[in-house]
Amino acid sequence: MGRRSGSKGASTAEAVQAAARRLIAQRGFAAVSMRDIAAEVGVQAGTIYLYTPDKQSLLLALMRDHLLALLAAWEAEAALAEAETAPQALERFVRFHVGYHISRPDEVFIAYMELRNLTEANFAEVEALRDGYESALRGLLARGVAEGQFTLPDLRLTARAIIAMLTGVTTWYRAGGRLSPAQVADHYADLVRRMTHAATP
Amino acid sequence: MGRRSGSKGASTAEAVQAAARRLIAQRGFAAVSMRDIAAEVGVQAGTIYLYTPDKQSLLLALMRDHLLALLAAWEAEAALAEAETAPQALERFVRFHVGYHISRPDEVFIAYMELRNLTEANFAEVEALRDGYESALRGLLARGVAEGQFTLPDLRLTARAIIAMLTGVTTWYRAGGRLSPAQVADHYADLVRRMTHAATP
Repeated sequence: MGRRSGSKGASTAEAVQAAARRLIAQRGFAAVSMRDIAAEVGVQAGTIYLYTPDKQSLLLALMRDHLLALLAAWEAEAALAEAETAPQALERFVRFHVGYHISRPDEVFIAYMELRNLTEANFAEVEALRDGYESALRGLLARGVAEGQFTLPDLRLTARAIIAMLTGVTTWYRAGGRLSPAQVADHYADLVRRMTHAATP
Repeated sequence: MGRRSGSKGASTAEAVQAAARRLIAQRGFAAVSMRDIAAEVGVQAGTIYLYTPDKQSLLLALMRDHLLALLAAWEAEAALAEAETAPQALERFVRFHVGYHISRPDEVFIAYMELRNLTEANFAEVEALRDGYESALRGLLARGVAEGQFTLPDLRLTARAIIAMLTGVTTWYRAGGRLSPAQVADHYADLVRRMTHAATP
């Protein structure tokens, strides 16, 4: 453990994770070896094992860290959302989700696409984290329904529909393209607002 | 070519493609060898090369056939949609897309996730097919805007948002779960109707 402590160890640990993320997103989990990751970091093949016991642990760490960072980032927004109306809070969620994901296509790709390569126990852990995030959105939707601002026959399906729609931005958005991130977020916020608002009586 | 002709050849060719689809969806393109596919079909490793020159051709064939079948299936619906109002035609598209994809999670997974493993030329071919399908939806949206039934500031983004939302069904739907495919389609149709309909003046 000695070599993992201190700033050199911490920065190498971060470099290992960044290299794993880059290579797995490019080639897929199965095609990347621990040796490839070591080469990408610029360390000897054996050195990598000082930072992670195996590739499965590295994959779990990538997904767990992504979801924990996402949840922590949303927690800061959620505190503000509590003082808002349900429609305002939902708009905050949409803008947050688009903004957070649009700049992290590698993390999103791995978090969704490499689920099949997790062991059963690791999959369960990742799914629980993902559901924690989804339940934050369900809570906002439930509040709007309770307050009469949203009409939604199925909160679980609607939350999944909204998240899939918003996360899809990572498959087509390119920096410097036709729309700025702010314009993209405006459009998604408008679509979600219309999708959820209570039918006029 | 002799061994590829006739019904035995055709059925083996289909078995090769089905085995490739199953294995690639489970393990990822990089982790599946031609030898694995041959073993799954139950033929000698060398025999597989009578049906496909290499793994790249097999991947392209899987994606191309999926998109061509999707486009052909939509063509039949599109003929009916022409006689309908734009909102009816859009609802038809939503029900079609959900119904078609909900039963084909492997095809969807490969079509989106293995794009990175296509050569540049093959990627361009697949993207053109995908855009052909997306443009069918854009056409329906444009018709509704022209006829005053939809208010949509950005057709391209809206089409992508709708397709991502609907295709997301393959990540969570399980047969025998809480909702039937028809109920799932009803809910998505409702969300899309609300998302697109013209603001009341």
